[in-house]
Amino acid sequence: MERTHTNGELRLSDTGKEVTLLGWVAKRRNFGALVFIDLRDRTGITQLVFDETLAEQIKDVRNEYILQVSGTVLERKDKNPKLATGDIEVKVNEVSIINSAETTPIIVADDTDALEDTRLKYRYLDLRRPIMQNKLMMRHKITHSMREYLDSKDFIEIETPMLGRSTPEGARDYLVPSRVHPGSFYALPQSPQLYKQLLMVSGFERYYQFARCFRDEDLRADRQTDFTQVDLETSFLSDVEIQTMMEEMLQKLMKDVKGMDISIPFPRLTWEEAMNRYGSDKPDNRFAMELQDITELFINCGFKVFQDCIANAGSIKAVVVPDKASMTRKEIDKITELAKKNGAKGLVTLKYLNGEVSGPIVKFLSEDEIHALIERLTLKENDLVLIVSDKWRITCEVLGALRNHFGSLLGLKKKDEFSYLWVTDFPMFEYSEEDGRWYAMHHPFTRPRDEDMQYIDTDPGKVHAIAYDVVLNGYELGGGSLRIYDGAMQDKMFEVLGFTEEKIQENFGWFVDALKYGTPPHGGLAFGLDRIAMILSESDSIRDVIAFPKNANAKCPMSDAPTPVDEEQLQELHITITEKE
Amino acid sequence: MERTHTNGELRLSDTGKEVTLLGWVAKRRNFGALVFIDLRDRTGITQLVFDETLAEQIKDVRNEYILQVSGTVLERKDKNPKLATGDIEVKVNEVSIINSAETTPIIVADDTDALEDTRLKYRYLDLRRPIMQNKLMMRHKITHSMREYLDSKDFIEIETPMLGRSTPEGARDYLVPSRVHPGSFYALPQSPQLYKQLLMVSGFERYYQFARCFRDEDLRADRQTDFTQVDLETSFLSDVEIQTMMEEMLQKLMKDVKGMDISIPFPRLTWEEAMNRYGSDKPDNRFAMELQDITELFINCGFKVFQDCIANAGSIKAVVVPDKASMTRKEIDKITELAKKNGAKGLVTLKYLNGEVSGPIVKFLSEDEIHALIERLTLKENDLVLIVSDKWRITCEVLGALRNHFGSLLGLKKKDEFSYLWVTDFPMFEYSEEDGRWYAMHHPFTRPRDEDMQYIDTDPGKVHAIAYDVVLNGYELGGGSLRIYDGAMQDKMFEVLGFTEEKIQENFGWFVDALKYGTPPHGGLAFGLDRIAMILSESDSIRDVIAFPKNANAKCPMSDAPTPVDEEQLQELHITITEKE
Repeated sequence: MERTHTNGELRLSDTGKEVTLLGWVAKRRNFGALVFIDLRDRTGITQLVFDETLAEQIKDVRNEYILQVSGTVLERKDKNPKLATGDIEVKVNEVSIINSAETTPIIVADDTDALEDTRLKYRYLDLRRPIMQNKLMMRHKITHSMREYLDSKDFIEIETPMLGRSTPEGARDYLVPSRVHPGSFYALPQSPQLYKQLLMVSGFERYYQFARCFRDEDLRADRQTDFTQVDLETSFLSDVEIQTMMEEMLQKLMKDVKGMDISIPFPRLTWEEAMNRYGSDKPDNRFAMELQDITELFINCGFKVFQDCIANAGSIKAVVVPDKASMTRKEIDKITELAKKNGAKGLVTLKYLNGEVSGPIVKFLSEDEIHALIERLTLKENDLVLIVSDKWRITCEVLGALRNHFGSLLGLKKKDEFSYLWVTDFPMFEYSEEDGRWYAMHHPFTRPRDEDMQYIDTDPGKVHAIAYDVVLNGYELGGGSLRIYDGAMQDKMFEVLGFTEEKIQENFGWFVDALKYGTPPHGGLAFGLDRIAMILSESDSIRDVIAFPKNANAKCPMSDAPTPVDEEQLQELHITITEKE
Repeated sequence: MERTHTNGELRLSDTGKEVTLLGWVAKRRNFGALVFIDLRDRTGITQLVFDETLAEQIKDVRNEYILQVSGTVLERKDKNPKLATGDIEVKVNEVSIINSAETTPIIVADDTDALEDTRLKYRYLDLRRPIMQNKLMMRHKITHSMREYLDSKDFIEIETPMLGRSTPEGARDYLVPSRVHPGSFYALPQSPQLYKQLLMVSGFERYYQFARCFRDEDLRADRQTDFTQVDLETSFLSDVEIQTMMEEMLQKLMKDVKGMDISIPFPRLTWEEAMNRYGSDKPDNRFAMELQDITELFINCGFKVFQDCIANAGSIKAVVVPDKASMTRKEIDKITELAKKNGAKGLVTLKYLNGEVSGPIVKFLSEDEIHALIERLTLKENDLVLIVSDKWRITCEVLGALRNHFGSLLGLKKKDEFSYLWVTDFPMFEYSEEDGRWYAMHHPFTRPRDEDMQYIDTDPGKVHAIAYDVVLNGYELGGGSLRIYDGAMQDKMFEVLGFTEEKIQENFGWFVDALKYGTPPHGGLAFGLDRIAMILSESDSIRDVIAFPKNANAKCPMSDAPTPVDEEQLQELHITITEKE
């Protein structure tokens, strides 16, 4: 008696066949002298029927027992159209119990009301739920599809070190004390950035890796202690050539995994345009509600806030939310709160009801201004208008956050709609008022646009990077850039970032040296695999597409990691604990 | 001017074509007014010819400059049969210098006399050597081939945690201090063993992963701080069914990567037979020189060492080394030394010269015994006979080591010959005299043979595991087993290993609990990818098939990792250093 079929396989055309199935009991119900059992494996569910001759043998069988059964495929009287195998059932004539099961602490079914920590504690049962199995199987399909594309383009997968060197820039490193070198530490990689560039120096031309990366940051719904990056790098290609390949890869991915045809090239927005229109460097363009610049309407405005804003070279922008003029004072207070949380000093709201604009600031506006506003924003009955006036970037970001908020609230973010775009021409540097220095917006190895190099000493804020992000449904799916490939330009970059010669030598000397020996022009990209899997599987959290994730407290509720360890282990590592939980 | 071909591509049939090539200058030589340059990329080398019209433009060009050239493909007068493109050359009519290069600290050519630490310090140049590029490209081909097979058999790749829990059994863990949980540590995985078993509990049925694994052990030629494991697990299959799949996978691998047809099934040896015949649990059967048991010849022997051995139920075994009877006393002393290093108290050597057996112990042997020995070992002129008499396992292991030694010495280990076999039926337990307890030979989750369970309480040494290793050319390429799938048997196993209830609960409770809820029979295997790549690429060290390996001192000579870190970083991790290098 050897398994002949899986539980997702049998159809009406199999009627009459003798089959052997294996799987878990998903449901058992008695019906007179008959017993019906739904048998589950990773491919689906098949209904089994046992008559009284087998009653004794299966009397103890209940949910999550493992059975092997042989029997005959019969057409079902009550067909179940929701089930792929719903046209048939198997009349069992032989059964063997492979293993028994205690009552499970969580119910093994798609719908669950278990708390997430309970689900993570019994993850092996949580993953038995078909919905979860399908998510991980989709993740596999995704990696398979991407690998297939990259292999077809002669990319080579190369593994880079997991135990690397700690570097001061960027996020916080996870450290690993060395037993052999007392007082020294390895760092787990935040990304294979320098290694993949060195592989280009080595002449590999096209590299990829599904790389585990680590950042010791506080966790959120879409963050984990470690994550998987689809990391790639190429030599001798332009930014557009790289982007085109990635578009092809994602087009194939959508076809392979979702059966959807998407068109390429994706829309391209410069960073400035993305900020202006969506208030975000990762715009969700599944819905419109774009930001509209209305600064010019208020050049001679009597409203002091607008006056000051314009005097300080700021921007006044608006977002129109349809059908929300009926919001209560309380609801609007909440929106104002959200605006402030995102950096606004205040939020102006206007309602357009019965052909009239109303709102606290209306009294400060002229008839002409109100009329111009209605026209400019093409207001419709029941529109709610959100206006922010501040420095350009703050105005954009605040309205971007509000736009996102209302996009969700109005149900405009359809999970089964997938909208890709590129954001390009990022600023090379960001100035930190707090630290009084420039930071690299991507990283210090990003190549600036040639035509902007004239500003690098005098006005670094004007320099754009040849950097690009792929955005899907408001998530940054991946990002990359062309890289600097000559030492002099790299030195200049470090200079703008205020690195001392000593710091450069100490931290990056080993890398910068490599640029001297015939480095090819190169550039690449890295995708967040967890995010791709989350979005394509239409999940709410990346934890749903990771087999054994950490909770928001960086703990694994199943194994309890991290844990205290033996004193002896610490001694061998030449460290001691200064504080205990 | 866009690249039209790679440097490994052009053939005689391309003569007359206008082409554009890109690559590194591998060699430059002047020949009258002409300049010849070998242009290299990852696919090969093409010879370029520059005439005097371009002399000025390329006057500074030397090794490792990057050029882009356009020109015409011509038939070569002096063909180079060693080069795939050796029939042609490209007469350049346009050249552009993409990047310059300083003199490289190591020579970029297949042959190198650079010290390994120098090669590792400038790894990006070392990897530019075609021989090294080919090794890493072969490694990619290997993973590609294996993935293809596993995907075709419905295996699903699932990533398991990199930050797990430290467990006391097994090798030393690399620890990662937790910032969020003061005094607690994650451990980097030694293998995904428990996680892959839990995935079977979850019902995934067929899992694989190319998993990075970590053991903080002292390094050797075939050890690294971390290594890559082709890890897989299946449900509902027998040991032979699993082995058959693996044979198919390796058969495909040999075809895809080496173009070789190998036959399956592989020979299967029980562990006992492997020890008896080869003195090793990973026999290299590319050559014979098998161990021969000669205990029975000396039942009534006058030689006291043999007498004592037999009285103590020991074994006397011999290995015959052809053509080595001429070894000098000094050479034989060295062999004796090697025997002692492997645990022997002594080594008996005999020579067979001119039809006579000679050697120090001959005087203790009878005519009949000598005659029986000649016949039993079918000695030939000039044979050297190595005899060890000790406890069975020591006798086997010592002669196994000597057999290996002479296999190398006699050039019997051909690098381009690939001999696979299975070793099965390992003992479940090994007794440690030192610790006075039994240890699991594989791991405590290995399933014992049903028929041996009767001995588990009374004579654990008699219990065999359903465990199997794949051996290639004397290397353990992979190993696996069927696993325990019921809690009672798992408890029994822990009992034999002397684990207290408390220790079990503390360390494995989370795992053992999972066995209660309907665990399928399951089993799997893990292959050492680095080793496979090393052997198939005919390399001497796994460092040759790892892009950026650590040296034998667990250090990366390129990045200098591990390094000291800022005090601030340690404070955040709630640890302090007790000793500095």
